[in-house]
Amino acid sequence: MKRICLGLWLLITIPVFAQNKMVVFQSDFGLKDGAVAAMKGVAMRVSPDLKLYDLTHEIPAYNIWEAAYRLEQTVPYWSEGTVFVSVIDPGVGTERKSVVLKTNTGQFIVTPDNGTLTLVAASLGIAAIREIDETVNRRKDSGKSYTFHGRDVYAYTAARLAAGTITFEQVGPPLPNRVVTIPFQQPVLENGLLKGNIAILDIQYGNIWTNIPAELFNQLKPAYGDNLHVSFFHNDKKVTVVDAPYSETFGAVAKGKPLAYLNSLMQLSFALNQDSFAEVHHIGSGSEWRVEISLSHKK
Amino acid sequence: MKRICLGLWLLITIPVFAQNKMVVFQSDFGLKDGAVAAMKGVAMRVSPDLKLYDLTHEIPAYNIWEAAYRLEQTVPYWSEGTVFVSVIDPGVGTERKSVVLKTNTGQFIVTPDNGTLTLVAASLGIAAIREIDETVNRRKDSGKSYTFHGRDVYAYTAARLAAGTITFEQVGPPLPNRVVTIPFQQPVLENGLLKGNIAILDIQYGNIWTNIPAELFNQLKPAYGDNLHVSFFHNDKKVTVVDAPYSETFGAVAKGKPLAYLNSLMQLSFALNQDSFAEVHHIGSGSEWRVEISLSHKK
Amino acid sequence: MKRICLGLWLLITIPVFAQNKMVVFQSDFGLKDGAVAAMKGVAMRVSPDLKLYDLTHEIPAYNIWEAAYRLEQTVPYWSEGTVFVSVIDPGVGTERKSVVLKTNTGQFIVTPDNGTLTLVAASLGIAAIREIDETVNRRKDSGKSYTFHGRDVYAYTAARLAAGTITFEQVGPPLPNRVVTIPFQQPVLENGLLKGNIAILDIQYGNIWTNIPAELFNQLKPAYGDNLHVSFFHNDKKVTVVDAPYSETFGAVAKGKPLAYLNSLMQLSFALNQDSFAEVHHIGSGSEWRVEISLSHKK
Repeated sequence: MKRICLGLWLLITIPVFAQNKMVVFQSDFGLKDGAVAAMKGVAMRVSPDLKLYDLTHEIPAYNIWEAAYRLEQTVPYWSEGTVFVSVIDPGVGTERKSVVLKTNTGQFIVTPDNGTLTLVAASLGIAAIREIDETVNRRKDSGKSYTFHGRDVYAYTAARLAAGTITFEQVGPPLPNRVVTIPFQQPVLENGLLKGNIAILDIQYGNIWTNIPAELFNQLKPAYGDNLHVSFFHNDKKVTVVDAPYSETFGAVAKGKPLAYLNSLMQLSFALNQDSFAEVHHIGSGSEWRVEISLSHKK
Repeated sequence: MKRICLGLWLLITIPVFAQNKMVVFQSDFGLKDGAVAAMKGVAMRVSPDLKLYDLTHEIPAYNIWEAAYRLEQTVPYWSEGTVFVSVIDPGVGTERKSVVLKTNTGQFIVTPDNGTLTLVAASLGIAAIREIDETVNRRKDSGKSYTFHGRDVYAYTAARLAAGTITFEQVGPPLPNRVVTIPFQQPVLENGLLKGNIAILDIQYGNIWTNIPAELFNQLKPAYGDNLHVSFFHNDKKVTVVDAPYSETFGAVAKGKPLAYLNSLMQLSFALNQDSFAEVHHIGSGSEWRVEISLSHKK
Repeated sequence: MKRICLGLWLLITIPVFAQNKMVVFQSDFGLKDGAVAAMKGVAMRVSPDLKLYDLTHEIPAYNIWEAAYRLEQTVPYWSEGTVFVSVIDPGVGTERKSVVLKTNTGQFIVTPDNGTLTLVAASLGIAAIREIDETVNRRKDSGKSYTFHGRDVYAYTAARLAAGTITFEQVGPPLPNRVVTIPFQQPVLENGLLKGNIAILDIQYGNIWTNIPAELFNQLKPAYGDNLHVSFFHNDKKVTVVDAPYSETFGAVAKGKPLAYLNSLMQLSFALNQDSFAEVHHIGSGSEWRVEISLSHKK
């Protein structure tokens, strides 16, 4: 009897305590065709116990920078053990490596190593990287297909890792702890001039998000109402200059007026109250965009 | 032995009988960035047993009326105990209250009280409302962030409520049983003239959905083939007038021709067979739009 | 004691071994309103143990061909026992039958029989078809609603079938093993001329996917670098003619140049490297579009 109940105990407790069965998908496939559903079908065939989520599938085609940014924006909010799959892969069929990164905070990211890991590797840190061994970690019967690595390699490997079918070590051979990176303007404060990259647009609203953290901005000792004089550059061309008060809420300025604020990632951002800053001022984002800012205190 | 098996029994039955672990998300964030995934990551950290669904994230930015309508359209189809999170929040940072409404049918809605609850409070009834106590129900380490209440307060509180981490009472202090409401044309029948609001567009097809229920419409004793003479108003301006036969199916009229029908919510609606009524006739929806209808029986 | 533990055993093993609780939704409803969420609410009321996924809800309105294609593209990747629901239903309210198809590979498809099953019936084979008996398999209290079969019949029946509430036999009476089909150019090789249908656009990238399988194409003994001379037809009008080298990777041709390749379904396809073939050459897809191809070997 005791052994039977012990057997039951094991049977019950294994699924109850296994908590890393989550897979989060990102791609530039869009939601209009069956590519995402094919990836998920493959994952569910690996294990029906997996829980599948979407980061986004609306990354602009081939935009590795934005893929990198979306991972940075979301990975930290998911539990240790969550497996992300990111398939933005303009170099499919070329020599870029297929890898799994384990962050220092315990999440996994399955992706081509083409710059996608630029930001998350820097902010969360690299615990280890392994190259996917496709002789093992590739969907059976997919050998003749040259183009859908997202389904046959990335989703398949992510599912097997998340389900515990393979360990991280079984992904494939270890690589050195560095990733392919995209160069961009780091946040710096030089002689009172704050410089940073325009990391992303908060596209739904047209807000401008920089990579300048609150810690750095706060060295200027800003108070609400202080004026920020901001120059926006694309490569080395100055696109526009705007003055915006540092504000606690959007409602602090009139409808349509600019403001500076700290966004939900605690990074310096710019918006128009109830209008699109990006559209009105023709501002984009990515490694080629940057800002220079000086602050003057309210009189 | 008995105690061991009893322990097992409890272990098994608790998850089996807990049925209100569902969270349904609505927002105006769109699906192009990481905001929705960040909310879901926060929820899954609260409890990996939660089941997460989406109502829509394509509410037009700041459109509280449409948020209200989508809740009305879907909440009744979900089980008692389901927790909805709705984040359409143009007043973030201002004095609107963050609340949880419990409907008389047993669903919960976590939202800023800014008009979002207008329709669902009226149709499903208010069992109770509580204000979210942010000193307790706010994600740890989010104190410095002023703008992402969706993630740090609403998703977090909804997940804790759905998972049973907190009871409804532990959301925060009770409020009076009333919500902030948006005024609009109620459905009425006056001297044979039927009046109502254009509640929403069935946007995928361009159909016009009013808030006039079958019960009211049926007081005119309509038969299929009867003619509806319909005036469409934006505020007090008459936009167009259309004659449409009351039809059982779209196929009852020629391609491109107008018809009147009862939609899936049993409310009077207008369409063109295989074309967009809204586009062809420049009709919108929301609290500012209304119709006046007279019916003439088929000869 | 033994009986108690045996009872436990059953209680545990039933959910563990029941693996067909997955429902995958497809529609032309879009993601902007509450229609999809209402269908899912209905499904979750049938059983909270179901796992719900989306194929796509962005099928162009009333486009049965594309619905057929998306099923063909994804159904094979999902496990035996998965239930698909496809609601593209321009004939709602007319005499088309509501059916459930069981494929020879064990998946189920719940849909109006209006051409949606054209491709999947041919490629996966028909194990059996049953007509949905709406006197039984229709959501209670939905009798007065004439238009939302997706929610009240299709989602409801799919959920009950997936959950095991009903068997396949309980769907309704059996029908003959044939489905309504849409005519289109079958892939053929005649006197060295390869003919086929343009099955779909890989819309995110603008690539052209034909229905010509690798097996047929390989009868021409193609080598990478060989030239394909391709005529594109809409109905009987020749739209354009393009020469494209057969390539192993997109990077094998210069940016913006055409190539021919085998897509992830191992079907002959055409693309521009990092540009949209469909947009540049004004090519569409569906039963009305076809190609004629001759191959010349590299010198």
